[in-house]
Amino acid sequence: MATYLEQLETPVPVVDLDRLAHNLDRMAAYATLHGLRLRPHVKTHKSPRIAAEQLRLGAVGLTCATLREAEVMAEVCDDLFVAYPPVGAARLERLARLPAEVQVTVAADDVHALDALAVAAKLGRRTIDVMVEADLGMHRVGVTSPEKAVAIARHVERSSSLRFAGLQFYPGHIRSHVKDQDAALVQLGRDIAVYTEALTDAGLPPRIVSGGSTPAAWRMHEVPGVNEVRPGTYVYNDRTTAQIGACDWEDCALTVLATVVSISVKGQAVIDAGTKALGREPLRAEGDGYGALLDHPEVVVSRLSEEHGILDLSQTSWRPRLGDQVRVIPNHVCIVVHLFDEIFGVRGHAVETRWPVAARGRASNLELETAPNRPRAV
Amino acid sequence: MATYLEQLETPVPVVDLDRLAHNLDRMAAYATLHGLRLRPHVKTHKSPRIAAEQLRLGAVGLTCATLREAEVMAEVCDDLFVAYPPVGAARLERLARLPAEVQVTVAADDVHALDALAVAAKLGRRTIDVMVEADLGMHRVGVTSPEKAVAIARHVERSSSLRFAGLQFYPGHIRSHVKDQDAALVQLGRDIAVYTEALTDAGLPPRIVSGGSTPAAWRMHEVPGVNEVRPGTYVYNDRTTAQIGACDWEDCALTVLATVVSISVKGQAVIDAGTKALGREPLRAEGDGYGALLDHPEVVVSRLSEEHGILDLSQTSWRPRLGDQVRVIPNHVCIVVHLFDEIFGVRGHAVETRWPVAARGRASNLELETAPNRPRAV
Repeated sequence: MATYLEQLETPVPVVDLDRLAHNLDRMAAYATLHGLRLRPHVKTHKSPRIAAEQLRLGAVGLTCATLREAEVMAEVCDDLFVAYPPVGAARLERLARLPAEVQVTVAADDVHALDALAVAAKLGRRTIDVMVEADLGMHRVGVTSPEKAVAIARHVERSSSLRFAGLQFYPGHIRSHVKDQDAALVQLGRDIAVYTEALTDAGLPPRIVSGGSTPAAWRMHEVPGVNEVRPGTYVYNDRTTAQIGACDWEDCALTVLATVVSISVKGQAVIDAGTKALGREPLRAEGDGYGALLDHPEVVVSRLSEEHGILDLSQTSWRPRLGDQVRVIPNHVCIVVHLFDEIFGVRGHAVETRWPVAARGRASNLELETAPNRPRAV
Repeated sequence: MATYLEQLETPVPVVDLDRLAHNLDRMAAYATLHGLRLRPHVKTHKSPRIAAEQLRLGAVGLTCATLREAEVMAEVCDDLFVAYPPVGAARLERLARLPAEVQVTVAADDVHALDALAVAAKLGRRTIDVMVEADLGMHRVGVTSPEKAVAIARHVERSSSLRFAGLQFYPGHIRSHVKDQDAALVQLGRDIAVYTEALTDAGLPPRIVSGGSTPAAWRMHEVPGVNEVRPGTYVYNDRTTAQIGACDWEDCALTVLATVVSISVKGQAVIDAGTKALGREPLRAEGDGYGALLDHPEVVVSRLSEEHGILDLSQTSWRPRLGDQVRVIPNHVCIVVHLFDEIFGVRGHAVETRWPVAARGRASNLELETAPNRPRAV
């Protein structure tokens, strides 16, 4: 018996399966066309099912941020880049315990992190690849000079359990709505050249130079030296991605299905998707609110409580009734996925499938055994 | 063998058990002193273990927002107020299926919600109590006139499966930092008197008049007519609660334990608690940032990425080393709890216990059976 949207209990994230397929195809084609290695970041979907599809379409491996993500993705992939500083005893222990057949790469920006990493690699009877992380404008993590990059690469190469793989950066500061994106990309190319030259002069040429992130991914082929991209958001896209022009409104694949639960206060309607369903993420572009309706983009979620979202009806003649369902395109989809345990896949109004957000949370390997996140047919 | 903070994998929420006990005692004593019914909101802790302690200390019942919360709390409590509009077929079905021995009360602000509610109550072979929700300044949900309140109460009383219980409001707009809190409380008393008179004139005097929320809870005894409070945040408190003066800094019981993972970029340190651990909640008081350090309150989390938090070191001489652990007092603790599956209980540096955030998420009864959230000794 078919299941329809109207039967789902809200709030719940639903994914348009055709849009998802289109988004996966488009990025894979872009990477193939320009000869870029595609190593998608799984933080957006946290699902081995979608990761397997990315790999089938040509991805060389996967990018993870947390060890939970890496453990879950090890089920479908044997080439994992943990793009996070390998710092902290518990994190190192989990890293070392990843299945032996998985090639593990990590990002490092401090020589002081390397000795413990080398010990962990040895205890795990494995060689860990190290990418030197450089700060090329984001000012978050990463070495701030080519000299420091060379020092880390040398330190890596001195360890028998570590291997230098290349250079990575996160161009999160380069977004389509930044007016001088052209100039920023040119500067990025120059910076990469300086780092690459320093490493090459030291006898340690980077095999991989890895950049990406969805907003900048589509232009990474214009940056000399870059040979890998790591976009995450592109699988679902969101209101911010659309607003900055990195996708069309019709490419937004994930919406939060919600129910109108109160129309008592004038000029607004209240839905059951609040901060605990949408996240309190700003629109990183022109505009305000925490999301907009798929079918009425002029209606934004203007205020949030934990379990209430306020729809501003001042810009629309549409008037919802109590109990109506609406679909909200969130500002930042990665945060929405992290708030739920399960996602439903739909075509039109028909619910075709459901899958767990298997890599959500922080549970250790030990706890994975009892996780309720098993695929299931609707 | 004892476990210490240093052994925990970060980011993870840890609760100071002495502070938690003190917070629970203090609110219970306040309610007893002033003859107020205490019906704590479980949205903050989502834990039947803490709920049981609240009941042991004299709470008359519990307040829930979601059906998941109600289902989990039904294990320890037979008097549940679902302070949320009973709208939507799936929500009504779950409401009706709560264990028969649980007395269920809901909040309503629209007569159109009542007929379906009455049917659901009948199918569940139970009587559901209804509180009329009034908008007394928050402008979120709630009827906006005494006439509408009377209309709902009358409609309720006409149904054989529903019973009118009283009046409820959420004074979220009254916070300690609002300069005219005194005036707001006086106005609240006047509004309640008007509603109560209208209902009494209609032959439907409210048995319960329920207000509360942590910031305003401590002054609810000053508002004539109020006989019940529903605070949630007080169990843990947070940076906002402390900043507006509704608790002391030393009453903040929950911190997010995090590790310094990068000190590469000048003037800052990066911890592994980002948006997916702290939430992007503003400080609802003077000040900025997304949290502050327990041991260095002058250090705030000034920027967030999904898995990175940037500590601003400009106001401190303290300089963390790579791998150091820090404890962050979050701006809004309810959101932090919702982001994690498990909480650790500590005294000093010793980890004494752990408990699941059992009512997190949206899982239906069916899925509860396979939930991994079982208590476990450290």
